[in-house]
Formats: sequence, C-alpha cells, structure tokens
Amino acid sequence: MSAMAGADKKVGVGILGFGNVGGPLVGLIADHGSMIAARAGVELEVVRVAVRDVTKPRSVALPAGVLTADASALVSDPAVDIVVEVIGGIEPARSLILAALAQGKPVVTANKELVATAGTELFAAAERAGVDLLFEASVAGGIPLIRPLRESLAGEKIRRVTGIVNGTTNFILTEMTEEGSSFADALAEAQALGYAESDPTADVEGFDAAAKAAILASIAFGAEVVAGDVDREGITKVTAADITAADDLGYVVKLLAVAEDLDGSIAVRVHPAMIPKQHPLASVRGSFNAVFIEGAAVGELMLYGRGAGGGPTAVAVLGDLVDAAKNLRSGARGATLGTFARVPIHPVGDLESQFYVTVDVADRPGVLAAIAGVFGKYAVSIQSMQQQGRGDEAHLIFVTHLAREADLRATMHEVGELDAVEQVGSVLRVVGGGG
Amino acid sequence: MSAMAGADKKVGVGILGFGNVGGPLVGLIADHGSMIAARAGVELEVVRVAVRDVTKPRSVALPAGVLTADASALVSDPAVDIVVEVIGGIEPARSLILAALAQGKPVVTANKELVATAGTELFAAAERAGVDLLFEASVAGGIPLIRPLRESLAGEKIRRVTGIVNGTTNFILTEMTEEGSSFADALAEAQALGYAESDPTADVEGFDAAAKAAILASIAFGAEVVAGDVDREGITKVTAADITAADDLGYVVKLLAVAEDLDGSIAVRVHPAMIPKQHPLASVRGSFNAVFIEGAAVGELMLYGRGAGGGPTAVAVLGDLVDAAKNLRSGARGATLGTFARVPIHPVGDLESQFYVTVDVADRPGVLAAIAGVFGKYAVSIQSMQQQGRGDEAHLIFVTHLAREADLRATMHEVGELDAVEQVGSVLRVVGGGG
Repeated sequence: MSAMAGADKKVGVGILGFGNVGGPLVGLIADHGSMIAARAGVELEVVRVAVRDVTKPRSVALPAGVLTADASALVSDPAVDIVVEVIGGIEPARSLILAALAQGKPVVTANKELVATAGTELFAAAERAGVDLLFEASVAGGIPLIRPLRESLAGEKIRRVTGIVNGTTNFILTEMTEEGSSFADALAEAQALGYAESDPTADVEGFDAAAKAAILASIAFGAEVVAGDVDREGITKVTAADITAADDLGYVVKLLAVAEDLDGSIAVRVHPAMIPKQHPLASVRGSFNAVFIEGAAVGELMLYGRGAGGGPTAVAVLGDLVDAAKNLRSGARGATLGTFARVPIHPVGDLESQFYVTVDVADRPGVLAAIAGVFGKYAVSIQSMQQQGRGDEAHLIFVTHLAREADLRATMHEVGELDAVEQVGSVLRVVGGGG
Repeated sequence: MSAMAGADKKVGVGILGFGNVGGPLVGLIADHGSMIAARAGVELEVVRVAVRDVTKPRSVALPAGVLTADASALVSDPAVDIVVEVIGGIEPARSLILAALAQGKPVVTANKELVATAGTELFAAAERAGVDLLFEASVAGGIPLIRPLRESLAGEKIRRVTGIVNGTTNFILTEMTEEGSSFADALAEAQALGYAESDPTADVEGFDAAAKAAILASIAFGAEVVAGDVDREGITKVTAADITAADDLGYVVKLLAVAEDLDGSIAVRVHPAMIPKQHPLASVRGSFNAVFIEGAAVGELMLYGRGAGGGPTAVAVLGDLVDAAKNLRSGARGATLGTFARVPIHPVGDLESQFYVTVDVADRPGVLAAIAGVFGKYAVSIQSMQQQGRGDEAHLIFVTHLAREADLRATMHEVGELDAVEQVGSVLRVVGGGG
C-alpha cells in the first residue's frame, strides 16, 4: 500500500436508497471511515445517494449536493466508482444494477428478492463485465454466510444447509413454545412489536424463507436455484398442541429452510419441523437467525445472528463494499462466483424423513388396527403411538421411522377417509435426530 | 478467467508436515481439485511434502518424488508457489515461514502457538514482502472466524468477543453438567476418548485457550496481543457442587476466552464462568467450539463448529490456500492485515463482573453478619445468598452484583481470615446475564 498515493485510496460510493439500510450505512461510513482506511487501505466517500423524494427530512446528515432523485444519473456519474443497491424489489433495482455492471462498476446489493429471482442473470452480467457483484446482505442480514460458504469452505463438499432464516416466524414459534401462546396470539404479538407486517403472508407462509433458501442452495452448491424451485410450507397450521407434543417428545418446532446435495440433484424446501432440543438450531430464539452447515470434512458448522434490521444489514453491505473497493484499487476481483449451472431439482416426494402426525378419531375397537393397516400398506413404519383423550374426542399421535414423503402423504390421505377418523391433524417432519 | 491459459492456472503447493492435518489436506485437494478449479479458477498441485521420516508408511498416497525430508529445500523449490505449514510448534516453523515470505511466497499456516507468540513478526514480514500470510486454521479449527471478523465486519466496531475455544475443557464441563461427573472422572473420560492428552495441563489450565484468545483479540481489534497478555485461569478448581449450584441458579459453567475493547485499552482473559442457560454459548456441548461476537451495529453473532481435528482444520487450511492461489494468479493480495499496533492491556483487577462465590463456615450466630460486613467494606453488593447444610458443615453461596475484580479478591481474602470461616471455596464469574 505504500506505493499508493492518498488520492488513489479514495473510492466514490453511490447509494441507491436511503432508508432502513442506507441510513445506517452512511452513518457507519462516517463513524468508521478512518478505521477502514487504516485497516483496509481504502477511503470510502459517499458521493451520491438516490432517493425518491429529496425534500423528505432525513435522520442522517449528508453534504449538500449528495442527495439526488435521479438514480440512473447516479449510476452513470463518473464520481461513482461503486454502486450500492438498497432499494429492494425487482425493478428498478435490476435495471440499475445491470446498467452499473455494464459500465464496469462493481455492485453491492442487499436485495434478497432480486438475487433469488434474477441472480443467475446478474451473476452472468458481472462475469461478462469482469467486476464484483457482492450480496452478503441479501440473505440472513448481518450473519456472515456467503463469504464463509464460498471462500472458507472453497475446498469442502457441502452436504446440507439447514437454516432458520425468517425472524418473524421464529419469534412466533418461540412465543408459542415459551409462553404457550396460540399461533394467532403470537402473530398478533409479533405484529404489535413490528416484527410482522399487517399482511404477514410472506413470512408465515414461508415465501421469504423460500427466497433465502434458493440463495443458500445456489451459494452452497454452486448451482442455479430460484425461489420457484423451493417446496414451501408455512407455519399457519402449527398448533399449540403440536408444540406441547414436541416438548414431551424432546423436540422444538422451527421453520426450517433445508437445501441438500443428493449427488447430481438438489432438494430445497421450507417447512416447519421438529428438531431435538440438543440440536444447535433449537437454541435459536426470538427473531434471531442461524444457518447450520454439514460438510463431509468440516463436520457441523453454525452461523448465528441478526437476520434482519438496518444496523446488521448495513454492516454486511459495508463488509462487501470494503471488499469491492479493495479489489477495485488492486485491480483484482473478489469472490468469483463461477458458473451457476442449472441442476435437477429433486422431487420432494422422493425425500425421506421421520414424520409426526396427529389423527382425530372416535375411540372405538379396531380404529388403531385400521389406521395401522394403512401405514403398513404404504410401508410407513411406526416408531411410537400415543393416545390422548377418550371417546369421540380421542387424538392419536404417531411418530414414524424414516419414510418417503410421497408414501406418507398417500398414507395420511387414506387414513383420512377411514370411517372412524374425524380428520388428519398435523403433519410435521422430525429432523436432525439421526433417525 | 477466460484470458488464462490452462497452464497458468496451476499453482504448485508445498506442504510442511504430513500428519493429522497434512494428510486430510492432500486428500481434499485430490478429491475436490476439479470443483475448486471450476469454482475458483485455480488448479492446486501438491508438488512437495516435507516430513521427518520419508520411509514411514502413510495412509494417503503421494506420487513418487513428492515426499522429501528437506524442509528448507521445499521452501526454496521453484516448483513451490505457496507454502503450507502444518508442522506446529515454534521452530523450525517460524524460520521456514520467514524464509518463504522473504522469497515472496505466500504462506498458509495452521499454527496457533506460533501465531499467538510471533504473530506480529510474521505479519510484518508478510507486509514487507507484499504477500499473503493466512492463518484461519490457527484458531477454532474449521470455524470460519478470521475472514468473517476481518472482512465481513470490516466496517464494524467490535465490542467484545467471547469464545468457547478449547474442546477438551468443554467436553469435560459438558460431562460434569450432563452426567454429574466429578472433574477427575470427566478428565479421565476425556483422556480415554483421546480428547485430552496424558498431561492435560495445556487444556485444563487454560494455556491453549489463552493462545487462541490472544489471536482472537488481535484480529477483532487490529492490535498486537500475545498469549502472555492474557489473564488465565483453568477449570481444575470447578467442582460438581459448582455445576449443580449453577444449574439451580439457571446457569451453565463454561471455560470462556473473553476479549473486550475498552476504548483505548484491551482486556483479554480466560476463565471458567457461569452463563445463562438461554445464552447461545450455553448450547455449545461436548468438544464443539463457538465464538460469540458483539458489535455496535451488527448486534450479536455466533460462529459454531469443530475447533480441532484433522478434517475441519484441513478444510480451513484449504480455504486459505484457494484464496492465496487466486490472489497469486491475479497479482492481488487477500486480507490485508494492516498494522497491528501495541495497545495497553487493561488490568484485570479493574474489570467488573458479577461473581459466584462459596464459603465454608461454622454455622454460628454472627457469621453471616461478619461476612456481609467484609463485603460491605469493599463495596461488593450481594445479590443473593443461600445456605446449604448446618453446623460445622455449613456452606454459603453468594452471587454478587457487578463488582470490581480487585475488590472481590480483597473481599474474599479477608473473608477467608475470619474465625468462623473454614475456607473460601469457588470463585466464578457470572457473565452474559445483562447484570
């Protein structure tokens, strides 16, 4: 670095968006700019910030002339060396990023939705342009994930990645577990605290987790996986009784994003599951996130932290920004993404799991035999059965051995049609128990 | 990468040592070389491996002519582009690394002892030579730690790093907690399983953890911290009764490495401590390691995994090796370490903690008043007191509010001299409870 003149160290940063993430980012650069210059040898200068409304009052001060309403002009501005995209959504974010890359400008983005939808297009554009496109903040907020997966584990064969990647649903399930709340009450609590939106669909139905699962799978396996590839089930059907039954059995219920490499195909899914209380993911409480990684040689790893929020996300963006700035000054490129090839997505019906299922029955002779007969017909083996209640209110809880998902579905469909069966209640996977 | 000829991608690797880590490393390069080439654009070729005894049978096969007994010649060999040091210890590792750096060759090392002792000298040599010196594997084995701390958190002010960084002592404490074992029995179990050495001093007295604490503090705060700066206390005095008392109070006992930035000075210590059962570190069981990071903006992060073992350590070495190889081919440098300045080490006596202390007393009138008087004299405030047993076997358990360590030490010294006091038993810090 001694060969560098001071002026060469300055890197002009243009930020698209000045909200929840952009504000703290500008604050961090102002507060820690000299530490970054000392340690990384680059001086970041925020030269342009694009917002929709330049007259709106802002909590973070900017020098005159930095704010602009013209996002396209920001991207083309010769003073802007690196573009940071923190506006979110597909458009205009996608077009602006493509424009920046086409002009040879490195891009840092925190946009989960965009990376999960159009990641391959963006990565290819970055490869063509030969510049960095970094997106650590797009999945699991402040948790370092992409750098560890792509760089620290560069020589490792990752078998499976299991994440708690949605803070809202983890908060709801934690409330249900620790306070005995119903799903509805825990959701209302999450909404009151601002963890859940008034329309909570994206969180509670698993859409947000599915987008993150797609990014995780892409990074872990170097393959093209999009949100639409993810088999998705939310937590709206999880009951207080399921949580209690899980506790009795030594489990907790979590919404998991699971991506597995099945030697030539990839399985990606989001669903609630019972995990053993001793599993490291079981201790992830409240709105925290964590990603559990299993590799052939490295064994088990877990990365835990704040998966959302302006501060943590801004820290992740800034880590990428420093990286991109160093690379720009040294003429190198950072984490090369390689080619993300499309790989077969494994049909979820073929996957094996243990299952927890509940069945409401009329308690009369022969009911269990009839149900057990259906399990047997589909070769689904029962590990344990427990009856709660008597008479017309009887409730059976089964835990199966490993079974093919398609077989389990067929079993439960047929069980549901038995005369003595009121209805099939919950169906939850049981994972991580080595079963 | 398209501009690169195939031959240019080849990077010659020379490995010093072919044991617990070197063996798995050669295996990983053989197994995943093509994946690495596809993803990272570099082809690693192990051209030389230096061992003490070339005639000894090896479980991993090497082509003829690769094994050599001449470590110095390996370093100077023109076919060796990057040197990997996995022999451990101070010498000859230090001299060989300095020789490689002086010849402009990047070095990857897994040597905790060396980095904790001579890190500053090695980092300075790497800076002078302008080549990479990477050491992810030197602390916490397979857990990505240095890259997240130095790169992902490049723009973050880290306040505190708290680690469970010694698998042997964590295994012993887990056995004591979950099986009710005594320290001696748990240590014997660890020795039988090969987790502890026949002379367990380095582990149970906290020397190994202290070396790792020094490296963690250096990386987290960009400062020169050596093993000798670390205030160290092991786990040999932790009793089964302490573990039970911790459980009753809602805590578990862990050996912690704690590095704190106190605005201008750094405090680094290793000691057993009680942490709340809900704390993420409390769920780190058996021989696993984890590092809990607190930052102003990012909040709480935890990185968890296998802190030792050939496989996990080899994965970490290989991540660094791929990084160094990419940088070598692109002419760039990876994680710049910056300048590690010597900073004041905060005197441990000035630090505040909550404390758990036990006192064996003769149960007679006035004893508690006398003890409480000593606490009061040193302004150590008592949060709770509990008496176990009666008569001459009485046993008092105190938990204090936040108190200066020096004050607590003075208190316990004076309490120990009271007539009715048999002896002061355990003194453990209570951390992470927000008290």
